[in-house]
Amino acid sequence: MEIKVMKRAMQAGIDTANDTRKLLKNKKILMINLIGSPGAGKTLIIENTLEMLGAKGRKAAVIEGDIASSKDALRLQKYGIPIVMINTGGNCHLDAASVAKALKEFDPEGLDIIIIENVGNLVCPAGFDLGEDFKVAVSSVTEGDDKPEKYPLLFREATLLLLNKVELISAVNFDKKEYYNGVNKLNGAITKLEVSAAKKIGMDKWINWLDAQIEDKIKLEG
Amino acid sequence: MEIKVMKRAMQAGIDTANDTRKLLKNKKILMINLIGSPGAGKTLIIENTLEMLGAKGRKAAVIEGDIASSKDALRLQKYGIPIVMINTGGNCHLDAASVAKALKEFDPEGLDIIIIENVGNLVCPAGFDLGEDFKVAVSSVTEGDDKPEKYPLLFREATLLLLNKVELISAVNFDKKEYYNGVNKLNGAITKLEVSAAKKIGMDKWINWLDAQIEDKIKLEG
Repeated sequence: MEIKVMKRAMQAGIDTANDTRKLLKNKKILMINLIGSPGAGKTLIIENTLEMLGAKGRKAAVIEGDIASSKDALRLQKYGIPIVMINTGGNCHLDAASVAKALKEFDPEGLDIIIIENVGNLVCPAGFDLGEDFKVAVSSVTEGDDKPEKYPLLFREATLLLLNKVELISAVNFDKKEYYNGVNKLNGAITKLEVSAAKKIGMDKWINWLDAQIEDKIKLEG
Repeated sequence: MEIKVMKRAMQAGIDTANDTRKLLKNKKILMINLIGSPGAGKTLIIENTLEMLGAKGRKAAVIEGDIASSKDALRLQKYGIPIVMINTGGNCHLDAASVAKALKEFDPEGLDIIIIENVGNLVCPAGFDLGEDFKVAVSSVTEGDDKPEKYPLLFREATLLLLNKVELISAVNFDKKEYYNGVNKLNGAITKLEVSAAKKIGMDKWINWLDAQIEDKIKLEG
């Protein structure tokens, strides 16, 4: 009985995610799902991304997933873009239903990209499809080089990996070879970029990559 | 129906945790539950703790909670103490039942303390009683000074807070005042210690505090 309840809920989540994907395909809007530990630098990466994509004339909206506070949503208000905050009330990840509901709060006309900042968590969010085009793993060198092996699902599920805070590599004895060995064992196809959102290192590569994905989505037959 | 199932499972967890607490009270063994983000430094803190408590003649055992790998358990093998690894198979926290089962793997005779390293996660583990005497929050400055406000439950539930990696405070622009304001709003009674497990800063205060808790537990009437 309990297993049936679980399966029913999971199937509903998958259906909702697929509906969202279909909707955004029709509207030619890219949606990405940023996932990483608390403090990995997701919000600062989004701040940089909004500035740099804005300079290219791209129109963005953000869905902010947070356990309790509206701190991150408030940080993004200065960009004058649509932001919907989802307060998960203790739940450790966003789900497809809340994202579908959040999308109804936007006027999607003219949008190029929707950026989802998931709840800061290296475990739960990776298992949930929100209807995004792809997941982006945000991992920071200060978390240590053993994280891929210890938290494999996100590294398996993500299309792109941003290794953040690279200016601190020597301060925290981060072994890049060990780290990338772990990543490659889990996902040979993942695109890997090294960045520092705080020091604006490598962000241009990330923006160019993202801009190309936006372009591909626009060109995609509906 | 679904709510009933949930309530039944939760009550079973509370009962199991209380049974564990009773057992360890009789045996006069302290049990602590270390919780923090991936890469906050929990395992390194445990390594330091085992060394320093060992030097005081205290006998320890460790329960290691991990999503997937046995990496942390292997790191601790050199201390020649009992270690039980619980592989949660994707679950984002330890539960009382697995800890109760793990305790059957030890010979508790002569043990002073059992240290639980929970799954690296700032969200889920804080909500689950494992039968411990108290929870220890491990927070690192590289995660940012906004974490208490964004992830309140752990800071509410913990008896002691270890703020780790303090040698990196200036490198990451961590605002201590902002951080402690957040902590104090959630939990005025929490004991706060600043440490660096990597640079061996402040660890003596932590060990003295822990040693006093062990002593109190031994003196407690069974």
